[in-house]
Amino acid sequence: MSQPYMFEKPLGLRDTLPQAQKEISRLEMIFQRELQRWGYDFIKTPALEYAETIGRASAIADNRLFKFLDAEGHPVVLRPDMTTPIARIAASSLREEPLPLRLAYTADLYRSQRKEGGHPSEFEQTGAELIGDATPYADVEVISLMMSLLEKSGLASVRLAVGHVGFVNAFFYDMVKDKAIVNHLRNLLYSKNDVGFHDYVATLHVTGEVAALLNSFVDSRRMNNKETLQFLERLADTSSTPVHSYYQNITELIHLLKLDNLDAQIDLDITLVPHLSYYTGFVFQGFGGNLGFPVASGGRYDDLLAKFNRPCPATGFGIRLDRLMSAIAMPEAEREKKCAVIYDRENAGNAMRYAAEEREKGRSVVLQHAEGIDIQETFEQQFESVTYFLERTETEE
Amino acid sequence: MSQPYMFEKPLGLRDTLPQAQKEISRLEMIFQRELQRWGYDFIKTPALEYAETIGRASAIADNRLFKFLDAEGHPVVLRPDMTTPIARIAASSLREEPLPLRLAYTADLYRSQRKEGGHPSEFEQTGAELIGDATPYADVEVISLMMSLLEKSGLASVRLAVGHVGFVNAFFYDMVKDKAIVNHLRNLLYSKNDVGFHDYVATLHVTGEVAALLNSFVDSRRMNNKETLQFLERLADTSSTPVHSYYQNITELIHLLKLDNLDAQIDLDITLVPHLSYYTGFVFQGFGGNLGFPVASGGRYDDLLAKFNRPCPATGFGIRLDRLMSAIAMPEAEREKKCAVIYDRENAGNAMRYAAEEREKGRSVVLQHAEGIDIQETFEQQFESVTYFLERTETEE
Repeated sequence: MSQPYMFEKPLGLRDTLPQAQKEISRLEMIFQRELQRWGYDFIKTPALEYAETIGRASAIADNRLFKFLDAEGHPVVLRPDMTTPIARIAASSLREEPLPLRLAYTADLYRSQRKEGGHPSEFEQTGAELIGDATPYADVEVISLMMSLLEKSGLASVRLAVGHVGFVNAFFYDMVKDKAIVNHLRNLLYSKNDVGFHDYVATLHVTGEVAALLNSFVDSRRMNNKETLQFLERLADTSSTPVHSYYQNITELIHLLKLDNLDAQIDLDITLVPHLSYYTGFVFQGFGGNLGFPVASGGRYDDLLAKFNRPCPATGFGIRLDRLMSAIAMPEAEREKKCAVIYDRENAGNAMRYAAEEREKGRSVVLQHAEGIDIQETFEQQFESVTYFLERTETEE
Repeated sequence: MSQPYMFEKPLGLRDTLPQAQKEISRLEMIFQRELQRWGYDFIKTPALEYAETIGRASAIADNRLFKFLDAEGHPVVLRPDMTTPIARIAASSLREEPLPLRLAYTADLYRSQRKEGGHPSEFEQTGAELIGDATPYADVEVISLMMSLLEKSGLASVRLAVGHVGFVNAFFYDMVKDKAIVNHLRNLLYSKNDVGFHDYVATLHVTGEVAALLNSFVDSRRMNNKETLQFLERLADTSSTPVHSYYQNITELIHLLKLDNLDAQIDLDITLVPHLSYYTGFVFQGFGGNLGFPVASGGRYDDLLAKFNRPCPATGFGIRLDRLMSAIAMPEAEREKKCAVIYDRENAGNAMRYAAEEREKGRSVVLQHAEGIDIQETFEQQFESVTYFLERTETEE
């Protein structure tokens, strides 16, 4: 065995040790229970998919994919997201199921890292997809559901940023009538390069009025929700039908989130543009616990299923468990201690019966023959209590 | 997008649809609860490991590995088993933890298929490893634990075949004094080629007495436990110290399994030889539900941790969830139905509150705006009950 790699793991990959795994397991169970209560069905997909389908449709950059040839010589990828595999299933195995479909998953995703920077190449994500419902009510549902999961996880100060890339695209197109310019403006929003945005606007051949509107658009990032809604209304009144219709969806969403008592936790931010290119409507990111980056994100992707020959609207989100873990402190009560039962040959039967009874009561009991212990003192220190079944004596310490 | 692959998955890979995933999830939870009660801590390891470490140590044939180069040009493999990664962790991150260590996992494992034959390239396994305890009490513990998990899964007619590859190797060596011949005899046992075994024995330059003993060894497959123990005693009495010591471990194990009331479910079979080459002592396989192949297997592997510079005895097992699923029928009671709440804009607030209350009671409730439904009749057929919040009327159907 080659010594240098004996204990090493490939770039960006980690072990999860018992204490952290216990916390992840707690979150998985909370999420699973809540998603089932909202009527979402869990599915699972293979870790490997053909590069021709999932790799291309997934909107993850090619150099971030783990890509190789399978035994038959076909290029395969480790799944970089779950939305695309779920779209594949919705368009094939679940094609005959009534719409809308509500699907959920917890899965490991893989995105190759090129250098050591603390970013994981493998991370766990829990998510939900609501497929076949074009109404803003579907967007409200997935937003409410994501907020509910984050609240129940124990994350403090849960907040949500909400934008709408459909509005952004349509409004920009109204202003400049050129898709390449629209894409460039949107990329400047994505990189939050406000100075670059203003500089670029100055180079465009547009009227002073249009330039002012574009500039005020990027500056709306600092407005509160009421100001943003008034600003969007002003834009919608002077814009084309799509912009106006998207504006109505936004007001409807805010109205519904108020009914759900979530509006105080929402930051409407029309400049929000996520990195995944398949979003077409509402987009959102979940924050909390004083982290500077989102722990969850989602949005509407009405064009993705058409790539699998089943044109169909859809919206959904994913929660990054690794990020969530870094934002919440594990409740002390969860760190339950174990008991030990230490026995010898003569008392094996009684010790086994005692351990079985305690386990039936829900206790965590290590049953350990005395001869198998390496160093008694350090072994026993792990336990809340130790019960001895030795030489016909039964004493509890 | 290349049409032929649009809905295809690479060889041996499958989707798990909602009903099957619900059953897998049920098994995962049963196993997790039970393993925690026995004091086992869950850990998780990366899907990718360096081929130089895990690939080589894992005892899975090279042509069964998913192997490729990572971004830095190092050969990596998708983990083909979990015992080897756990040995790596026990020898590194958990090196300072008191022995014995009790670790558990649920993980997807990857073994490349060369042709379509119904065998999965990816399968889920739950397992446990007890590290640092050389006594037969540790073997009894993992055997009892595996039996307990299989019983609690709902598998019918749980049975266990138990052998001891340490005994096999030592006894064969006593007989023929040649490691190559020992390996050949053991491989004939593994492939259950009794005729080939007898033919091969006939070619060996051994006394008639040795040939008769070797032949009776392979024929012991058909003996009951009492006969097998008598047979092993006879072999041990005429053999070297290791064989005698292994025999005593076997009688001790049977004694302890009797105390645990498991002896009636045990088939002692000294000819049992598993495919994983790292086993050194007791080996066992779990059967049930009239399946012709094992759903679980395990054994002692006292030499594996030395490959990671931490010589240390260990024993453990893994349960194949895919095989278990094929052997058990899902309890009808588990197939709980969902309720639907169908609402319109005017009644959105009331519908949301009603759904939230029902979910708090633990019910599974789909909240659906009427406009988002594709075909009302087929949509509603999925649910046990439908409650309408429409046009100021609240009626339950």
